[in-house]
Amino acid sequence: MAAVAGSASAGANGSAAAHRVGAPTNPMATALLTDQYQFSMAYAYWKAGKHADRAVKNPFGGEFTVFAGLEECIKFIANFKFTEDDILFLQSVMPMCEDAFFDYLRKTDCSDVEVYSIPEGSVVFPKVPLMRVEGPVAVVQLLETPFVNLINYASLVTTNAARHRHVAGKSKVLLEFGLRRAQGPDGAISASKYCFMGGFDATSNVLAGNLFGIPLRGTHSHAYVSSYMSLDEIPDKSLKSKDGSRVCKDFVSLVKEWLQKIQLADSLCGVFGETNQSELAAFASYALAFPTNFLALVDTYDVMRSGIPNFCAVALALHDLGYKASGIRLDSGDLAYLSIEARKVFRTLEKEFNVPAFGKMIITASNDLNEETIDALNKQGHEVDSFGIGTYLVTCYSQAALGCVFKLVEINSRPRIKLSEDVAKVSIPCKKRCFRLYGKEGYPLVDIMMRESEPSPKAGERILCRHPFLESKRAYVVPQHVEELLQCYWPDKPRVELPSLEEIRGRCMQQLEKLRPDHIRRLNPTPYKVSVSAKLYEFIHSLWLNEAPVGELQ
Amino acid sequence: MAAVAGSASAGANGSAAAHRVGAPTNPMATALLTDQYQFSMAYAYWKAGKHADRAVKNPFGGEFTVFAGLEECIKFIANFKFTEDDILFLQSVMPMCEDAFFDYLRKTDCSDVEVYSIPEGSVVFPKVPLMRVEGPVAVVQLLETPFVNLINYASLVTTNAARHRHVAGKSKVLLEFGLRRAQGPDGAISASKYCFMGGFDATSNVLAGNLFGIPLRGTHSHAYVSSYMSLDEIPDKSLKSKDGSRVCKDFVSLVKEWLQKIQLADSLCGVFGETNQSELAAFASYALAFPTNFLALVDTYDVMRSGIPNFCAVALALHDLGYKASGIRLDSGDLAYLSIEARKVFRTLEKEFNVPAFGKMIITASNDLNEETIDALNKQGHEVDSFGIGTYLVTCYSQAALGCVFKLVEINSRPRIKLSEDVAKVSIPCKKRCFRLYGKEGYPLVDIMMRESEPSPKAGERILCRHPFLESKRAYVVPQHVEELLQCYWPDKPRVELPSLEEIRGRCMQQLEKLRPDHIRRLNPTPYKVSVSAKLYEFIHSLWLNEAPVGELQ
Repeated sequence: MAAVAGSASAGANGSAAAHRVGAPTNPMATALLTDQYQFSMAYAYWKAGKHADRAVKNPFGGEFTVFAGLEECIKFIANFKFTEDDILFLQSVMPMCEDAFFDYLRKTDCSDVEVYSIPEGSVVFPKVPLMRVEGPVAVVQLLETPFVNLINYASLVTTNAARHRHVAGKSKVLLEFGLRRAQGPDGAISASKYCFMGGFDATSNVLAGNLFGIPLRGTHSHAYVSSYMSLDEIPDKSLKSKDGSRVCKDFVSLVKEWLQKIQLADSLCGVFGETNQSELAAFASYALAFPTNFLALVDTYDVMRSGIPNFCAVALALHDLGYKASGIRLDSGDLAYLSIEARKVFRTLEKEFNVPAFGKMIITASNDLNEETIDALNKQGHEVDSFGIGTYLVTCYSQAALGCVFKLVEINSRPRIKLSEDVAKVSIPCKKRCFRLYGKEGYPLVDIMMRESEPSPKAGERILCRHPFLESKRAYVVPQHVEELLQCYWPDKPRVELPSLEEIRGRCMQQLEKLRPDHIRRLNPTPYKVSVSAKLYEFIHSLWLNEAPVGELQ
Repeated sequence: MAAVAGSASAGANGSAAAHRVGAPTNPMATALLTDQYQFSMAYAYWKAGKHADRAVKNPFGGEFTVFAGLEECIKFIANFKFTEDDILFLQSVMPMCEDAFFDYLRKTDCSDVEVYSIPEGSVVFPKVPLMRVEGPVAVVQLLETPFVNLINYASLVTTNAARHRHVAGKSKVLLEFGLRRAQGPDGAISASKYCFMGGFDATSNVLAGNLFGIPLRGTHSHAYVSSYMSLDEIPDKSLKSKDGSRVCKDFVSLVKEWLQKIQLADSLCGVFGETNQSELAAFASYALAFPTNFLALVDTYDVMRSGIPNFCAVALALHDLGYKASGIRLDSGDLAYLSIEARKVFRTLEKEFNVPAFGKMIITASNDLNEETIDALNKQGHEVDSFGIGTYLVTCYSQAALGCVFKLVEINSRPRIKLSEDVAKVSIPCKKRCFRLYGKEGYPLVDIMMRESEPSPKAGERILCRHPFLESKRAYVVPQHVEELLQCYWPDKPRVELPSLEEIRGRCMQQLEKLRPDHIRRLNPTPYKVSVSAKLYEFIHSLWLNEAPVGELQ
């Protein structure tokens, strides 16, 4: 679904390849999707004859991040073109610009742009460029805002999903339930796609399932339960057994019988009394519609006094007919306690009525969950198998934006540096190559940035890694394995297939597993080291001294 | 642009009207944009023969909110239809459902649905329904998720924008700069639309300007400044005067002359020394491209030592040729201090060189601003005329999601109530009419919900308003003016025009002005009262007693 096919012909240029790359997932991603000042700057560059300069820009991740959004960027440049309507609109809002500029825009595409990028789904660290965009400065300018837009939220929510996966553990099922709380329809589609990339198993969003092939999962709502009044409302009470061999004419009576057996069961010591009949009707009706897939929301009235016995009665009736109920969803209350109590009931019934695997019924929890609440549940102990997460996941509530930016690092082969009072904000100038160095145990040890002209680091060879700004911080490393981080994706990559969403997800999972655990633990993680070569260090600091004004103390 | 035209014919039904309503702004808003369990429930309802029941549902706002998203909801239902591809996909993911259900979906549209809503742009309060959706329960079910999606973020960001407007005051210009930080392309488009609705003046997002006619505003970036090295890089240095009467052949020399005059100006006591020449080159080049619209970002190197004198030199050179510079943007540092210092320089130069209005140059500030920082700036005192706000505005950082939900309130003319341990979560059952009662001074006093059968409250007549849950809280009110809140928008409204974005924005501004100031102040606002009629009060409480289980203390 997510793959982009291209020609294998080595001679194909970017422009020709563009026709073979698919459209962006989001139809809003047109060439007009940019900040107004980008057009102003493009005009100023064009006016100054600077549009053919080669600009090199880097967006940076703000901290440990899973990099996502690359495929959408590549689709964006492959489809980058101004329509005549776009041009008319731009002329109307920029009447001061010369006509020749608009003629230039009419002819503009991204065939002359090169994009080097870390593969999507990679774990990345501050300072190392995620992407390098080279090309005519006016065009690169127009790509800045859409690229930052396409990468920022994608990387943020993928990282958030990966963190949820990390805290929940590998064995749990994670469901994305964010559609209602995302930023409009496409915000929701992006959320579903990137949560899956970051390690979720399924989404409730049908359109995302359709677009990306993400597995769909969900159950009914409280409204469904309260829409029923009594068991009399079910018109057709018959249910065929799973093997088709017989028909139960009155499934509702079978459910009632089971409810009575549960109420009278010795092993439950009569804990269950009367249950809510409208809830029972809703469950029975839902089971008649989905006998192979019965998952009930059990907290509309009272989980332990009504939801659980009603669910068990319907599940056991289904079992009589050869079906296996899926489980329950808890959406309120003390999830640790309720899941443990529910599990006890399931296990007791498994023994009491000799129903194999009834004790292993899936328990899903879903009330305003986030990293912290899952961590707290783990500490208390719980019996939840599956977490449904919405608001906190898709809005990235705890950090609603990622500080990913574009920096100009070189123009006309001249390096540029952006200075700042805050050392952390100083950009690393010039066109660079970036490598990840791996140690004996297979963990990545350090990322290193080098000048383009330097020889690549080699496995088994000693290399000096320096802190980009602190003179005294440096270390020798003898890598066991060296990985070059930035690869060419445009115009070369469309000739081969971009990885599928499943493949990117796999890369993300694998990269997180390869990291030393102290780098990704939730509290006080050890910072991963990002370094520069000795040559790049010297270069940065000579440029810095050159550009920074000398103050005057008065 | 945003208006929806419809026929005036009284006989047109919803289905026919649908063809006259525009497509949703977001092409992602298709009939598949819903949670998977909505289809499961639709099937269960269909299976139980319940799909022709009339369901009435209410979404509630969580607190003081500007209601937005209605137009998109109306467009959604007008275009609600399953394509054959949609049906094939649904069959593939729900293989257990009977074929007749999919035939039912093929025929499904919203011609049998009625939508009553508070007008878009209205100020709303908790408990009062924003919208009532009536129709076959299976269809209403399918609308639940997309409606919540379309209303939640829209209302949240509109409210956020209105709050920023409130704290900034009427006289300031507010610019939305959120494109880079929004949830993908459409999140950004929604943000621009609804920030404008909530009181912003312009956006930097070109596509939003094109789609909605929102004014565009922006300036150049730091990267533009650092892309220049020296004044020699400007190939064409000539500039025609504004009236076209003469041509300055070397604008750059004129700029240099002015810089020297500023450096030597008596009234500035020689505070300005050498400035950064690459910044000066960038400013001069930008002014040559946009002589009528020169707005410079002055903090790339050093605001007071370089940015301000460089800007003034270029602005004064432009003035010589009859142009008027727009102003500066500050994107870092102490915005209060820098804006005051910059203003002093502008005023001094106005007098020194007798340049009328030079002291009134627009000062825009834009570094991670939000309600709190604007409030803090106001308390310190500042000279900022215009605020550019991005991240905190569009991500709604301080509360990234609105708790707006759908509640089933009636089915088959039988009222339904959702109980909860938390009284604030108990729903107000049954189909209701809602009124806003205004006092003598023109302020709204209280909102009241009544049963449908009750006579409307009338101006000048005494009416008892009761707290929905607390027995002792009640008050008599004699309204000067009564406004019915819920109006029919579908299928009736498409026959007339839906209001334009400008009109909705106007409504929002007007509604906020009409509120008693203590309801909207930032700290400890007085809660606005929401009440029920005596009859509805009795009804709620009898239903509650009836549904709530009687506990047993053991």
